[in-house]
Amino acid sequence: MYEGPVQDLIDELGRLPGIGPKSAQRIAFHLLAAEPADVTRLQEVLQKVKEGVVFCDICGNVSEEPTCRICRDARRDPAVVCVVEEPKDVLAVERTREFRGRYHVLGGALDPLSGVGPDQLRVRELLTRIGRDEITEVIIATDPNTEGEATATYLVRMLRDFPGLNVTRLASGLPMGGDLEFADELTLGRALSGRRAV
Amino acid sequence: MYEGPVQDLIDELGRLPGIGPKSAQRIAFHLLAAEPADVTRLQEVLQKVKEGVVFCDICGNVSEEPTCRICRDARRDPAVVCVVEEPKDVLAVERTREFRGRYHVLGGALDPLSGVGPDQLRVRELLTRIGRDEITEVIIATDPNTEGEATATYLVRMLRDFPGLNVTRLASGLPMGGDLEFADELTLGRALSGRRAV
Repeated sequence: MYEGPVQDLIDELGRLPGIGPKSAQRIAFHLLAAEPADVTRLQEVLQKVKEGVVFCDICGNVSEEPTCRICRDARRDPAVVCVVEEPKDVLAVERTREFRGRYHVLGGALDPLSGVGPDQLRVRELLTRIGRDEITEVIIATDPNTEGEATATYLVRMLRDFPGLNVTRLASGLPMGGDLEFADELTLGRALSGRRAV
Repeated sequence: MYEGPVQDLIDELGRLPGIGPKSAQRIAFHLLAAEPADVTRLQEVLQKVKEGVVFCDICGNVSEEPTCRICRDARRDPAVVCVVEEPKDVLAVERTREFRGRYHVLGGALDPLSGVGPDQLRVRELLTRIGRDEITEVIIATDPNTEGEATATYLVRMLRDFPGLNVTRLASGLPMGGDLEFADELTLGRALSGRRAV
């Protein structure tokens, strides 16, 4: 145990996700030796984040203004909406440069054991949006795990009765650059059942 | 790229040692969802560390008071001084529970290419201490790497002329729980040359 503020800093850093005692110690000594201006900058961004980050009124993504950059962008197709769990998933889809529609961030996935039901997610906002705007396709891009699949199934049930709305789900299958031999049964099974005519 | 303060926070966190873009993103979203009180605590310890952590007048370790806990502890042998590079090395030696003497923290190791010479380390303070206090043994516990070995060699040269002072160095050899087959040549060579009669 170090004495005083150094140990306090190590303790606080160690509470952050993915930072163990060794990393916390390393970061603490780095900050100890850092320019005061660097530490001040870190304090300032923490303050700004604490004061409240704005979420887009329309899609729920993190934003600087009441409406986010993507929802403001008139060049993006407002008729296609990609539904994701978290803001970081928006970034992941954006990195593909394949999608030119809009997003809807649910803020998580259905997980009844942790008390996350449809009311904890932005499902109502999605339904309002579909009813109000002229949306022709909803792409469900929740994670391919238990919670994500449950959320997708739930959304499909909610959305299938909207007239003129196509509901699609991201394809499951073998990852590119992968190896058939090392694919798990579930993924290979999905790749088989989702096989395409060429 | 996220918008506004979230991206700023990710950027600042990503500058810390051992935190890559993915970890920075994960921590940022954790802080976004955290209680404001938690973020405030982190800000406060950063402030305290920035305002200046005290270093012990005697040994140079991080401390809460002008003299650190170990230097104040009358039960610890003041005649034996263990010389280490960094405060974290004090902790490492303390964890062995084998050492009941005092410490001297150099604040680094000799590294001329990075501009670290004897004047940048607390070598003068060590010499003053040896001249003033009744020290009978100096254990050099710098890291067993190039800089640490150079520092040890330099210290041995400085200290060997003090009358009645034993200068020792931590043993190099095979790590406990290791495997002879996987030891590197340098370590195995050191273990051979440092072999002991049993």
